[in-house]
Amino acid sequence: MSTLTFPGSLPSPADDCEQLHKAFQGWGTNEGLIISVLAHRPAAHRREIRRAYAEIYGEDLLKALDKELTRDFERAVLLWVLDAAERDAVLANEVVRKWSPGNRVLIEIAVARTADELFAAKRAYQARFKRSLEEDVAAHTNGDFRKLLVPLVSSYRYEGSEVNASLAKSEAKMLHEKIKGKDYNHEEVIRILTTRSKAQLLATFNDYKNQFGNPINKDLKSDPKNEFLSVLRAIIRCITCPERYLEKVIRLAINKMGTDEGSLTRVITTRAEVDMKQIKELYHKRNSVTLYRAVKKDTTGDYEDFLLALIGHDDA
Amino acid sequence: MSTLTFPGSLPSPADDCEQLHKAFQGWGTNEGLIISVLAHRPAAHRREIRRAYAEIYGEDLLKALDKELTRDFERAVLLWVLDAAERDAVLANEVVRKWSPGNRVLIEIAVARTADELFAAKRAYQARFKRSLEEDVAAHTNGDFRKLLVPLVSSYRYEGSEVNASLAKSEAKMLHEKIKGKDYNHEEVIRILTTRSKAQLLATFNDYKNQFGNPINKDLKSDPKNEFLSVLRAIIRCITCPERYLEKVIRLAINKMGTDEGSLTRVITTRAEVDMKQIKELYHKRNSVTLYRAVKKDTTGDYEDFLLALIGHDDA
Repeated sequence: MSTLTFPGSLPSPADDCEQLHKAFQGWGTNEGLIISVLAHRPAAHRREIRRAYAEIYGEDLLKALDKELTRDFERAVLLWVLDAAERDAVLANEVVRKWSPGNRVLIEIAVARTADELFAAKRAYQARFKRSLEEDVAAHTNGDFRKLLVPLVSSYRYEGSEVNASLAKSEAKMLHEKIKGKDYNHEEVIRILTTRSKAQLLATFNDYKNQFGNPINKDLKSDPKNEFLSVLRAIIRCITCPERYLEKVIRLAINKMGTDEGSLTRVITTRAEVDMKQIKELYHKRNSVTLYRAVKKDTTGDYEDFLLALIGHDDA
Repeated sequence: MSTLTFPGSLPSPADDCEQLHKAFQGWGTNEGLIISVLAHRPAAHRREIRRAYAEIYGEDLLKALDKELTRDFERAVLLWVLDAAERDAVLANEVVRKWSPGNRVLIEIAVARTADELFAAKRAYQARFKRSLEEDVAAHTNGDFRKLLVPLVSSYRYEGSEVNASLAKSEAKMLHEKIKGKDYNHEEVIRILTTRSKAQLLATFNDYKNQFGNPINKDLKSDPKNEFLSVLRAIIRCITCPERYLEKVIRLAINKMGTDEGSLTRVITTRAEVDMKQIKELYHKRNSVTLYRAVKKDTTGDYEDFLLALIGHDDA
């Protein structure tokens, strides 16, 4: 569920544009006004604001914001103003061009989205970059990571709830054999994780635990330094419980020496309207402090105000 | 271009349903009437007929046709009544369950369609079979064929006309090196063929010929018995000129001892409204006989009448 809060009745897009335009004028910028408008409008309304702004002032709102804002606050607002699909396309493109095995953004976009959201992101990627996401991932990754990531971003997974129990059993066995033989990059492991529906994979992971005693991710922890294993675990966590996975991304971003603003901004702007309520609850439970307080402590200024507006108060 | 011919003004879907219903009644079936209606209506109108038939007579038109018709004529009419995406889904499902390396239907569906048509077929596949096409292809194929076919059906290719000339050059070189080393199943070969846009691949194949003297498909003919090579050549032909590829499928289907009705029906029903006019021209040029005459000579009865109605007269 979303953590966004809106005024009782939304102003018209034209009125919102007027406020934004006012915020940009004169000496300095009225960041508070920008936040009070943009952080409290749902996606469809933000799209209307962007359209109206271009119509009324003859300038792309993103360009105007880019001129007025700076640093982390700028990045957060720009990502936020984009459509979800465009935002994912931009994030994926940034990361694919300087991809390294430790980067998890592609996994988030490929797995923590619905099949249709991933597809929309791929269309937006093509519209914006004149290439496909899959060809860029294929061209910029290598070895086992490529074998895993290309199908991960390519597959259009089935999303129904139908589960084939005997298939879950046989594929759980297959996964166990390969993991036991340390054959982690085996093509059957990759095939199962990248093509099966999430419901089917949940059944397979449950069966794995029932048949062989350990959760599959425990068996994939045999070598903590192996980056490929850690990617497999991230994928499995994103499949089984994306909110829990994203809570951890935020936790690590905040607990890092010097906050990882990139990850914090990404998760908050991409999930505020999706499942931030659940992520907040999980965060509170796991860290004995609310996400609101943690973000407040770790960030400053307009950036802080903006993120807090998106995640909402503790009791929201 | 389409070879379908329509009456000056189309009857209403309800009127068409009445004709069809009449054709089904009494002793025997009026196949001529069925052909005169269904073979001369565009896809959107056929969809309306199907909807209206269910509404008026409380029965799926496909079921009614299934009861009345038999053999090759039945199969052709049933495929024809389906939406293009549904038809591809049904064809893909039939073939994936009994896949063998010699079968080219998946290649046709993955490559001789636009990216959006392939995606629509994948959605229709999920709606109908409660699984994804990619997971079925991955589960029912193996070895090098799987490495090639899974990304082939998974990728959402970019379809713009932008071409990166230096990339074409470097990837032509890469393809040449692998082919020269008989490393046909190399992951770079598969990556290039399955992820790059068709415009980019055309540039790459042109560059290949310019740099190394032979068309790429000539260099892939080193071992005529190697089935994997023959699949690669089929993919490349489908990319460079799908009409020419499909002309060959029809030619082989007709020239076979005992016509291959499966292939003939498939290509005619899937292409009649797309590029059958070009396929007919290519067929005439290549075989010194028109496709109309060839089909007339090789088929009989209602099946013959139906196919001829779809491909149109020689001068159409």
